[in-house]
Amino acid sequence: MSERATTARLRLSGLCFLLQILTIILFAVFVRYSPESSPSFCSQQLNCSWRNQDAGFRDPRFRDVHLQALLGFGLLVAFLSRYGPGSVATSILIVAFTIQWAILIQGFLHFFLNGKIYVGAQSMVSADFCTAAILISTGAALGRVNPVQMLLLTLLGVTLFTLNEYILLSLMGVSDSGGSLTVHTFGAYFGLMVSRLLHQPHVDKRKEQRDTGHQPDVFAVVGTICLWIFWPSFTSATMVRDNGEPWAVLNTYFSLAASTLAAFVLSPVLYEDSTLRMVQIQDATLAGVAVMGMAGEMLVTPFGALSAGFLAGLIPPLGFRFLTPFLHSRLKIQDTCGVHNVHGLPGVLGALLGTLLVWLATADAYGARLELLFPLVAQGSRTIADQALCQLCALPVTLLLATLGGCLTGAVLQLKALRPPPETRDLENTVLWEV
Amino acid sequence: MSERATTARLRLSGLCFLLQILTIILFAVFVRYSPESSPSFCSQQLNCSWRNQDAGFRDPRFRDVHLQALLGFGLLVAFLSRYGPGSVATSILIVAFTIQWAILIQGFLHFFLNGKIYVGAQSMVSADFCTAAILISTGAALGRVNPVQMLLLTLLGVTLFTLNEYILLSLMGVSDSGGSLTVHTFGAYFGLMVSRLLHQPHVDKRKEQRDTGHQPDVFAVVGTICLWIFWPSFTSATMVRDNGEPWAVLNTYFSLAASTLAAFVLSPVLYEDSTLRMVQIQDATLAGVAVMGMAGEMLVTPFGALSAGFLAGLIPPLGFRFLTPFLHSRLKIQDTCGVHNVHGLPGVLGALLGTLLVWLATADAYGARLELLFPLVAQGSRTIADQALCQLCALPVTLLLATLGGCLTGAVLQLKALRPPPETRDLENTVLWEV
Amino acid sequence: MSERATTARLRLSGLCFLLQILTIILFAVFVRYSPESSPSFCSQQLNCSWRNQDAGFRDPRFRDVHLQALLGFGLLVAFLSRYGPGSVATSILIVAFTIQWAILIQGFLHFFLNGKIYVGAQSMVSADFCTAAILISTGAALGRVNPVQMLLLTLLGVTLFTLNEYILLSLMGVSDSGGSLTVHTFGAYFGLMVSRLLHQPHVDKRKEQRDTGHQPDVFAVVGTICLWIFWPSFTSATMVRDNGEPWAVLNTYFSLAASTLAAFVLSPVLYEDSTLRMVQIQDATLAGVAVMGMAGEMLVTPFGALSAGFLAGLIPPLGFRFLTPFLHSRLKIQDTCGVHNVHGLPGVLGALLGTLLVWLATADAYGARLELLFPLVAQGSRTIADQALCQLCALPVTLLLATLGGCLTGAVLQLKALRPPPETRDLENTVLWEV
Repeated sequence: MSERATTARLRLSGLCFLLQILTIILFAVFVRYSPESSPSFCSQQLNCSWRNQDAGFRDPRFRDVHLQALLGFGLLVAFLSRYGPGSVATSILIVAFTIQWAILIQGFLHFFLNGKIYVGAQSMVSADFCTAAILISTGAALGRVNPVQMLLLTLLGVTLFTLNEYILLSLMGVSDSGGSLTVHTFGAYFGLMVSRLLHQPHVDKRKEQRDTGHQPDVFAVVGTICLWIFWPSFTSATMVRDNGEPWAVLNTYFSLAASTLAAFVLSPVLYEDSTLRMVQIQDATLAGVAVMGMAGEMLVTPFGALSAGFLAGLIPPLGFRFLTPFLHSRLKIQDTCGVHNVHGLPGVLGALLGTLLVWLATADAYGARLELLFPLVAQGSRTIADQALCQLCALPVTLLLATLGGCLTGAVLQLKALRPPPETRDLENTVLWEV
Repeated sequence: MSERATTARLRLSGLCFLLQILTIILFAVFVRYSPESSPSFCSQQLNCSWRNQDAGFRDPRFRDVHLQALLGFGLLVAFLSRYGPGSVATSILIVAFTIQWAILIQGFLHFFLNGKIYVGAQSMVSADFCTAAILISTGAALGRVNPVQMLLLTLLGVTLFTLNEYILLSLMGVSDSGGSLTVHTFGAYFGLMVSRLLHQPHVDKRKEQRDTGHQPDVFAVVGTICLWIFWPSFTSATMVRDNGEPWAVLNTYFSLAASTLAAFVLSPVLYEDSTLRMVQIQDATLAGVAVMGMAGEMLVTPFGALSAGFLAGLIPPLGFRFLTPFLHSRLKIQDTCGVHNVHGLPGVLGALLGTLLVWLATADAYGARLELLFPLVAQGSRTIADQALCQLCALPVTLLLATLGGCLTGAVLQLKALRPPPETRDLENTVLWEV
Repeated sequence: MSERATTARLRLSGLCFLLQILTIILFAVFVRYSPESSPSFCSQQLNCSWRNQDAGFRDPRFRDVHLQALLGFGLLVAFLSRYGPGSVATSILIVAFTIQWAILIQGFLHFFLNGKIYVGAQSMVSADFCTAAILISTGAALGRVNPVQMLLLTLLGVTLFTLNEYILLSLMGVSDSGGSLTVHTFGAYFGLMVSRLLHQPHVDKRKEQRDTGHQPDVFAVVGTICLWIFWPSFTSATMVRDNGEPWAVLNTYFSLAASTLAAFVLSPVLYEDSTLRMVQIQDATLAGVAVMGMAGEMLVTPFGALSAGFLAGLIPPLGFRFLTPFLHSRLKIQDTCGVHNVHGLPGVLGALLGTLLVWLATADAYGARLELLFPLVAQGSRTIADQALCQLCALPVTLLLATLGGCLTGAVLQLKALRPPPETRDLENTVLWEV
């Protein structure tokens, strides 16, 4: 390997070292474990209006950090099918750093008290949500950023994600337990804007070839199965109670089932000359869970979940066929893993569906669930119509923050100091790519 | 791809669309979520004598729909090792449709009240059991049915499975918590009869080659490990209580361990000229769990589980060596994935073992467990001997229903309207096969 | 295959048969299920001072035998990436036999009462810990022992593991809930000594080639993800309570995250001419969990876990670069899977860290946790300093037992009766290797 590649690798090594030392110091100064002897500690002293499903987190199931599963399986494996195992090393680096960084940033905003951040299983779950969004963002830019840029993207992305989450959940009182807006929509549009600013016309063709390469569909198979297994728990992670049927889990399953059939309906019509590929089923599956992020907890009839899942499952095939080429040629937005079709549009659809459901909500239909979903409404300080308006406003707020944040991040990544001279750029991209 | 293949794919697309719309309409008319405010709702108003381990389903663990894991990992991956990733697309289609259809059909029989079906986590677990049986059935016919026929097989198979389950569990009061009879035996013999009626002499040789193809054993490795992890929970899914040791889980583990050693004992004796293949270990593993379906909850000593597992592990190697060629040449039954050796015979053995254990059961040995296992005996309305007789009768009933139902389904699939003209049949088989 | 290979395979078949029959007989004579009607049975009658986190085992989560997951995924898959799927058949045989044998041996030492061994979910978890240690040991000797020798290694290894565990946990009252000493250190050094005695100079080169072969890194990817998902639960398996934050789980996650970054820091510096391979990330991950075995429950600040994980993550790259060649050339210790760098040294580091933490422990910092961690201290029969001394002494005791036991086992495996004539030895090694 040439000297330049070695330099690039040493630069990554140094950056990792610096970031890890920085994190350790910040943890040493600020982060403590929650005092466990006081189970009601949080609700009394800390600002727990954020994610006020406090009871849920006390559930032993959340201690069980199976949610972590999502990180590894759900998204990592999902991306592998598009980009091959070469991207895993980078993805795992991103996950390992994002968790530490999200604990810090989210801690400053949500768990800060007397100059200390108190962490617990709840913090880990929140960090997982953040990691999911960052993985979605990197999915859009994969192949056009080197690992050093990827770490900086993470640094900024986590901060912006937490800011958006804070505005939506704490300030506006929006109910988005499965992250249609905070995870899927924000992650997709943030990544797309970064990808837009990093547009490199001359690598298009080469990447294109690699992208459609004959990656064995084994990863897509495993990824799809893992999504079926782990995501329903994820969607309902912040909203589970001890008694009562797990509506969010059931709705997500129904949505998954219907979106899978949608892939079988549309693919033969759109792609006449080829057989159905597993990765298309996986895209439909991802769209089926993205649409249930906000609405999963609110749907009171199973047929609604079936219908929404079916519609969401139609989006990715249509998007890949008509929208992605348009974005690429006109707007110069390259979307390596197609996150716009798979996370962005279904997330927006899910947010609109959620708003509609809030609009139609009645105290009778929700019963005791009302207090969990819309505490402000249950307390009488807000009407159902106000709540619906808030949910609706959350969409443009998220889009705005994601777009502006993406522009900012993209501009930072384009800084001269970070950009290698053109002749080594391709080299650097492959530093961690080959496996 | 030729015009005919395109027609076939569009026909599948249309059928998926119709079935999904039909399901959505039926869900809209009939299916509602269980009112959660009344935890004792089911036991008071609905006919809950079926699967009367009501307390079990209220256990938060069942909310945790980890059982779903079975679907994906256990069986899907198990089949991959025999038929390659090409069959996954179809398998996932089957799973996605079976879950919706089973919720409906089982709902009409078990959860119907005042013109509505009330679903919850319990319905999802029941639908999972049904999906397992259907996947076993398709394993026998894989490669000789096109996806359209597969969907029709699912339509009829789910109905017959639910009918058999209703007769056994509700009418006869049989205890079969892990599905030795309802899942393994029914699924295997139903699929074998369908396969018999779809016998296509002229494709034998080509399929044969593909079947013994050099699929990398990676899938068999992953499948075996997944069976070890997930199936013990599945076997005990309907019978867990809050306190008390999980006999079914432990018995299944012991059975798995012993059946694995059985594969190492018998394979070198039977196949002198080749090394042990992972798929043989996987077959022994599957047989080891099938035999524990009914008896898992009844065995009161661990050595019984070891012995039964060891015997079950001997069945697949013997079956593949001596029985499968006989079935194929004399009875013209092709068994693509060898479900007869892996699910059928071990399931029958498990049912006989369960009957024997009921015969030997005493109130002392079971204690409080008696009420859970044999509520009718515990209530005094039936003697142990009567219960044993019922368990014994359940075997011929299941075999009869599976055989007759398989003949009926096979005959329907042979209808002229469904059969493509001979020259395109091979083509259609490959519509979704290539990946 | 030649006649000699056939003989070897039949010998394995016979040994499996004998061992299984022996186990069934011993189970029939000695093993019973715990009488479930008496939840306090164990604490009253049996010697439950061993693993006296009795309350933890009563937790339903332990019924949930997800811990089993470790067996399959964590370690099996971890080894695959180094030695290919060929070793899986043997590994699964080892797992299947170790579980049965460990239930027996551990039962005689820990659960023996009135001439019977009473087993339950607790026994299964203990057997899982034992299986993990045995898999680590076989990792050192993989490729130089035939399956028959492997079974004998298991027979002796399980006995010695249980003896060491009994001395440490029951006699010395050491707190080692995640097995830094009992699992990682014992397993690694036991395996290394066996490997030393089985040194075969003439097969070095061939094996070496195979070891560095171009196994696709797919297994390393899956293995790493599985470690992230399952090991944190494993580390905390024996120490969970109903309320209180899961420190061990959180500490293990933080350690994992930091050790992953450590791999990215050091690999480019040490291996200038190649790209980062997934297997290096996996090694760092394993080291990160090994170091948290003892200390995971004791660390009261997250930054400690980050620092320890970072240090542990530096060990494998340094070890593989400088220590393994030294061990190989000077001490003639071949280490097929590098268990010394990945389990041995991090385990020792974890034990030293644990000792230090005990030294610094105060009743204030631990609160109610003190009784769980150091029951003797909480009862007042031992001071903190005495406890720290015990923890420190446990390290040389473990090393001594592992080394002597390894020598003994290696000597037994070298017995003439077990050793095939030289010319067939290579053949035998491949009996189960090809897949």
